[in-house]
Amino acid sequence: MKVVLPDGKIPRKWYNILPDLPEPLAPPLDPETDEPINPEKLKRIFAEELVKQEMSQERYIEIPKKVREMYSKIGRPTPLFRATNLEKILDTPAGIYFKYEGATVTGSHKINTALAQAYYAKKQGIERLVTETGAGQWGTALSLAGALMGLKVRVYMARASYYQKPYRKTLMRVYGAEIFPSPSENTEIGRKFLKENPDHPGSLGIAISEAIEDVLKNEKARYSLGSVLNHVLMHQTVIGLEAKEQMKEFEEPDVIIGCVGGGSNFAGLAYPFVKDVLDGKTDHEFIAVEPRAAPSMTRGVYTYDYGDSGRLTPKMKMHTLGHTYYVPPIHAGGLRYHGLAPTLSILLNHGIVKPIAYHQTEVFEAAVLFAKAEGIVPAPESAHAVKAAIDKALEAKKEGKEIVILFNLSGHGLLDLKGYEDFLDGKLEDYEPEEFPILSAKS
Amino acid sequence: MKVVLPDGKIPRKWYNILPDLPEPLAPPLDPETDEPINPEKLKRIFAEELVKQEMSQERYIEIPKKVREMYSKIGRPTPLFRATNLEKILDTPAGIYFKYEGATVTGSHKINTALAQAYYAKKQGIERLVTETGAGQWGTALSLAGALMGLKVRVYMARASYYQKPYRKTLMRVYGAEIFPSPSENTEIGRKFLKENPDHPGSLGIAISEAIEDVLKNEKARYSLGSVLNHVLMHQTVIGLEAKEQMKEFEEPDVIIGCVGGGSNFAGLAYPFVKDVLDGKTDHEFIAVEPRAAPSMTRGVYTYDYGDSGRLTPKMKMHTLGHTYYVPPIHAGGLRYHGLAPTLSILLNHGIVKPIAYHQTEVFEAAVLFAKAEGIVPAPESAHAVKAAIDKALEAKKEGKEIVILFNLSGHGLLDLKGYEDFLDGKLEDYEPEEFPILSAKS
Repeated sequence: MKVVLPDGKIPRKWYNILPDLPEPLAPPLDPETDEPINPEKLKRIFAEELVKQEMSQERYIEIPKKVREMYSKIGRPTPLFRATNLEKILDTPAGIYFKYEGATVTGSHKINTALAQAYYAKKQGIERLVTETGAGQWGTALSLAGALMGLKVRVYMARASYYQKPYRKTLMRVYGAEIFPSPSENTEIGRKFLKENPDHPGSLGIAISEAIEDVLKNEKARYSLGSVLNHVLMHQTVIGLEAKEQMKEFEEPDVIIGCVGGGSNFAGLAYPFVKDVLDGKTDHEFIAVEPRAAPSMTRGVYTYDYGDSGRLTPKMKMHTLGHTYYVPPIHAGGLRYHGLAPTLSILLNHGIVKPIAYHQTEVFEAAVLFAKAEGIVPAPESAHAVKAAIDKALEAKKEGKEIVILFNLSGHGLLDLKGYEDFLDGKLEDYEPEEFPILSAKS
Repeated sequence: MKVVLPDGKIPRKWYNILPDLPEPLAPPLDPETDEPINPEKLKRIFAEELVKQEMSQERYIEIPKKVREMYSKIGRPTPLFRATNLEKILDTPAGIYFKYEGATVTGSHKINTALAQAYYAKKQGIERLVTETGAGQWGTALSLAGALMGLKVRVYMARASYYQKPYRKTLMRVYGAEIFPSPSENTEIGRKFLKENPDHPGSLGIAISEAIEDVLKNEKARYSLGSVLNHVLMHQTVIGLEAKEQMKEFEEPDVIIGCVGGGSNFAGLAYPFVKDVLDGKTDHEFIAVEPRAAPSMTRGVYTYDYGDSGRLTPKMKMHTLGHTYYVPPIHAGGLRYHGLAPTLSILLNHGIVKPIAYHQTEVFEAAVLFAKAEGIVPAPESAHAVKAAIDKALEAKKEGKEIVILFNLSGHGLLDLKGYEDFLDGKLEDYEPEEFPILSAKS
């Protein structure tokens, strides 16, 4: 059972949560001066229109026609399914629904913002977008967006993934992108890390630094980020806006669940529903799920921190484990990030969103149960949301409550089968660090 | 630009071409006696209802409710896209449309018959389905169908693929199937081939023999085939029936294209349109595309031959290269078959369907062009249809004709990226044998 929508129902506007937040966002700080950053400086890094969106107090921002056309091409609106078999297997009175972003042609929600970012850069006359990627979902999405909008794309890919996950790299090459293993010889920061350790496995934080350095050296290049920032989360709200329309065919959701790395897929589904709660119109429970190996929500500190290891990004006020934290190599590469979107950090602080953390073994166990019941093999990231949805449905069973659960299945796992293989072979390791750089720095 | 259909538009009946064929089908022969086979004997191999369907003269056969429910779960109806960017890049007056079977959760059309076969087996009280798989698309589909219908599944996978394509194997394991590398120690035939060559790479033909031998030893097991047979092709007609409905939003197609291994995805899209031509209602051109490494249509002989290497299947009258032909290791594993569906063989003989053959390098070149334009990375099999569609669109450009092209994008290539990597690295080899076993046997 599912609800599909025609092209005509692709949302016409993104929802911007900034004007509705329970408190104003703390300003990003210039990494050189620790003063609120001058937007002009940000325009050297990001496309102009994105800098405007980042600060905008407009509640709804129009989606350009060309972006909507490409949303159609890549598979939007995505379907919303009811997990009828899973409900039967769990023998739960709960209704379990999921929005399936894996139905896009690159297999995850990342393409939603990639297309918007590429569109605005092209419009401004930018020739190349530069970015980083961990597991490769974001790099893949931006590579395709570049191909569709007519822009060159350069990707710094964490060195360990570059060599261990050759197929995401191949996918980016098919779309015509240029890919460097990070740390690379291309940048000063890359060379510094390579000098310390020629076999450096790389990290998202280092790759971000390299991408920004690359951009600062090239007038016609701009940087693209796949999560964390307001404009990125805003572009993702097409997920929730569609889901609201689709849930009308069923019921009002009681619980809304998404996994969290930087926060963009969670926000994409949840923010349009959060608005109704902030407006006092209705009540929803929001659950944000993170890995215990990168627990910025459950164990991080709310403070100003850099977004990257090389300290090139503005400092943002957010939940963070410290920008020098090396996240252990869990299979959910998209969740291996030390920080958290500032807007989501505020919603956490106000108790509007509740965090929960899982180990990867229990997450894969839930994912396999889900795959056998519903046919879709979840991405390891999205599997965190699956696990929380199952736990919630079992809780409802215990309490005999007919609740309605909606979660974001933000991507499929067809390019992440190594994780499943390790799980089936009993080879998965769980990681839970005892301490984090941000805590040591404080003490 | 695309057309989606709601669950309610999932077809209620399959279209069976048998009563409409321009000549009756030659009967399958008993491999032991060379006499027309007794259907009772077939019931020991296949589920009863499938044997009935195989011979049925009913033009439309009802799709069971449970199968339609599962069609919804796995992503049916699939979307039909217009390839607007590809049209622009080719600067062609042709309209290019494609039916996207890669949108199903296992990523190809194979699930359409897998669900039907599993349903009828379960209804009959069968406990296990046994099958073979080459590249793994069929094995994956049957594994999921087993999970959804509550049946055990055992898959014999060509040994070379088993070791070189571990991720399809992982996917089948996620769905709970049991997988053996073929030739295996499990069967007499497997042991015979292993004795000749302990490193035997295996083949589809050998794996079929092993699966059938396995079934014959187990009363509660039945065999499942993923192509060639009438009932399999008939289950695939949901593709064309949906596409006819979807094309109403656009135009009547002039040319209909599909790739061909055994013939099931081609038939799935084309047969509902072939019916209109056989009825004299309209005119369509049908193009069936095969690899030059397995050219059963363009270089095979129309004669009785076995479906497998071990000579356990009934003999069928079809275009064949000879059941002992070892198809060179092209990346389009699903097209590595020596024979051709008997019904499609008849349509070829009558000039209703035209065959064409391509080398894999030109096919991957077309696939990369398509991926950059439309975002979808085609399976190497489906890329054969992409190549033919592009050629046809360029021909229309030369002739200044506004023709309408419809092709079947039968699967995505996210689990076939090795082929793309080899192509991008200039490492692909093309194969075109000078002769074939069937010709040597004749001479």
